[in-house]
Amino acid sequence: MRMYDLIRKKRDGGELSKPEIEFIVNGYTNGSLPDYQMSAFTMAVFFRGMTARETADLTRAMANSGDTVDLSAIKGIKVDKHSTGGVGDTTTLVLAPLVASIGVPVAKMSGHGLGHTGGTIDKLQSIPGFSVELSERQFVQNVNQIGLALTGQTGDVAPADKKLYALRDVTATVDSIPLIASSVMSKKLAAGADAIVLDVKTGEGAFMKTLDESFVLAKAMVEIGTELGRQTIAVVSDMNQPLGLAVGNALEVKEAIDTLQGHGPADLTELCLELGAHMTVLARKASDPETAKQRLRDQICSGAAVAKLKQFIAAQGGDASVVDRPEMLPQAAKTVVFKSETDGFISYINAETIGTCAMLLGAGREQKDSAIDLAVGIVLQKKIGDQVATGDPLAVLHLNDDARLPGVISLLRESFEISPVPVPKPPLIYGVVTREGIERFY
Amino acid sequence: MRMYDLIRKKRDGGELSKPEIEFIVNGYTNGSLPDYQMSAFTMAVFFRGMTARETADLTRAMANSGDTVDLSAIKGIKVDKHSTGGVGDTTTLVLAPLVASIGVPVAKMSGHGLGHTGGTIDKLQSIPGFSVELSERQFVQNVNQIGLALTGQTGDVAPADKKLYALRDVTATVDSIPLIASSVMSKKLAAGADAIVLDVKTGEGAFMKTLDESFVLAKAMVEIGTELGRQTIAVVSDMNQPLGLAVGNALEVKEAIDTLQGHGPADLTELCLELGAHMTVLARKASDPETAKQRLRDQICSGAAVAKLKQFIAAQGGDASVVDRPEMLPQAAKTVVFKSETDGFISYINAETIGTCAMLLGAGREQKDSAIDLAVGIVLQKKIGDQVATGDPLAVLHLNDDARLPGVISLLRESFEISPVPVPKPPLIYGVVTREGIERFY
Repeated sequence: MRMYDLIRKKRDGGELSKPEIEFIVNGYTNGSLPDYQMSAFTMAVFFRGMTARETADLTRAMANSGDTVDLSAIKGIKVDKHSTGGVGDTTTLVLAPLVASIGVPVAKMSGHGLGHTGGTIDKLQSIPGFSVELSERQFVQNVNQIGLALTGQTGDVAPADKKLYALRDVTATVDSIPLIASSVMSKKLAAGADAIVLDVKTGEGAFMKTLDESFVLAKAMVEIGTELGRQTIAVVSDMNQPLGLAVGNALEVKEAIDTLQGHGPADLTELCLELGAHMTVLARKASDPETAKQRLRDQICSGAAVAKLKQFIAAQGGDASVVDRPEMLPQAAKTVVFKSETDGFISYINAETIGTCAMLLGAGREQKDSAIDLAVGIVLQKKIGDQVATGDPLAVLHLNDDARLPGVISLLRESFEISPVPVPKPPLIYGVVTREGIERFY
Repeated sequence: MRMYDLIRKKRDGGELSKPEIEFIVNGYTNGSLPDYQMSAFTMAVFFRGMTARETADLTRAMANSGDTVDLSAIKGIKVDKHSTGGVGDTTTLVLAPLVASIGVPVAKMSGHGLGHTGGTIDKLQSIPGFSVELSERQFVQNVNQIGLALTGQTGDVAPADKKLYALRDVTATVDSIPLIASSVMSKKLAAGADAIVLDVKTGEGAFMKTLDESFVLAKAMVEIGTELGRQTIAVVSDMNQPLGLAVGNALEVKEAIDTLQGHGPADLTELCLELGAHMTVLARKASDPETAKQRLRDQICSGAAVAKLKQFIAAQGGDASVVDRPEMLPQAAKTVVFKSETDGFISYINAETIGTCAMLLGAGREQKDSAIDLAVGIVLQKKIGDQVATGDPLAVLHLNDDARLPGVISLLRESFEISPVPVPKPPLIYGVVTREGIERFY
């Protein structure tokens, strides 16, 4: 087999066989296939696409390119959740204890994030004493005993995907649906999930800007999961403004606690119930999403959800009293209120630039080894559709370094638009994609 | 400027500016731009194409990437001729003395060929004493005194094209019209031509298999020449069978001598008159192609053309008596006649496999440093449309090494097809492309 012929076949619209795709992935991983052939190939894929079968084979080959996690020692159906990435996405911190509280096993391995804030692991490290370094034995034992555990990613998971993503990133071949879908799904597959719930973000603050392409991506990922024997459901949700109100590490932990106690932001709560309901059904702990959603709501009202969070924190060495006294979380030296300069209705909040503001304050990493400040960030006070008067707070900044303030303030000014006439609140959930088909609400 | 953005721009169908194209060519030549970005870019060009303006800018940038030849010391309008490559193409050996004999200055730099036979330089080296290593001074002096000189290529001509072609060759991005056209034209531009006549081969033995794509390539090259201020004319000619009869080095020299004496193969003679006529008009030595063609025919009949060949050979140290005694050229040890095994009409001669036979006999280079045997090769005895009886010779093999014979014979058997019913002779010239437009005869 020659890579030249495979590039040419894809270039001319042909369908690659499973052995051909394995030849490419294995050759690229072991270095026998050079970057310049791989980048020509990915550009050909950009133009020609891949069939569902090719995409599934690519996903499997990438998942098998490195270490895979074996979760068979954990009882029950392990359901993983993945979000395609947005701003202020606190769902994992809420969902893990919420679904664990009704018996859905949560065995999550997370990486450190590169982005506006840290990843889930960074966020949890703002809880005093909390450890994200569990031995494999401890990890399995915790899930079997209390229903959930979260640990840092170890081993070399899907190295083919890592190498390919880095190449795509510098050759303008990131935005290809089969390549995005296989990248996400290969990591989920290698992480050992039995079933997968995907949160595909759509809108200005998301990778997928339009509703149509978001559904195409969702469908592609559900098809891969189905093809590879993993039940998969995708929810397409709004990212035309940040989700919830907090963008920061400790600030999002506090928001997660609020949400588990029943007084979190409405949109974050609703999305967690939607995603949690699908996780519950896939784990066979409820017969249908509506029943599941009601049970999850009950867990919040009864205090069972937040009790599970306390149990989770304690089991990983953290001080669970932080749940009742969130002031124990890292606090920034100073808060600054950013106020409206006009009367009207919020018509636009640029999620991307709000995220950049949080990063500028120190909440996120620009490079792999950047230090992050767990205390800082932004808490929105208004969302799209809300009425404001001149002087009303739009956002509160939590900061430790005044030097960044002028830049952040001027970026914030560009981040909000206020209309003189009322603006409707945007929808939160646009639809659900299952193996049976696409259900679009909008 | 970032290469990422330029790949993306082309990928999305945008038109690159001149500075953007120069950034790419210069960066690739000096090594600051990696192969993997260049190959993604060329694949995007494969799918999106390039405008005439972009292609001209690419050509100019590649021509300027290395040494350029200054022919200003040579009087008159220097017209270069280029063929896109076929089998048995002896035109340069005929054309150079032919047009020089009516005052068109011919200042040709040639490289050693990789292919079925050697290049023009190799062929000329079969003339006893002939030197292809002239000093720059000698080269210019010869052209000014006797009207023609031919020397080996020195210096680093269009290194960007060389590097890019090698990359395209392994990433399945060779067959893109703007990339082929700019590759050819960049070398002509760097070689210092004032005007260019292109012989675009079409058919099974050529790079361009269909008539339509051949005209598209011809048009693209004429547009580049026009855009860059070089008058350019392209002739689209047949390569569904070898041109002329001889495929070999000394064998083609003999065929060229025959043709200049007026008894060469009809198709080779006709094509040389057609190409020569356009060269003559571009050099302003005739007002129109028909007048030019008649003058060139007269030069053959009068013996002036072959006299110019003798003068040319003598000026470069060769023994001009070879023209009258071609048996002085290297002779193979043995000839073998390949005969027809049936009666009928030749309906097909595979130019590609005939070329491979010549190479197998030792006439061509498979690799840059392969030695070639100047004496060996094949002389066809029949062409498409000719009637044959069983036992009639189809080709004569000139060989020095019996070991290759069985393989060559079995390949020759596959190279001819004979039909029981009469077959028309294929056309030789399909059309002419000038800046004024395309004139198609078929």
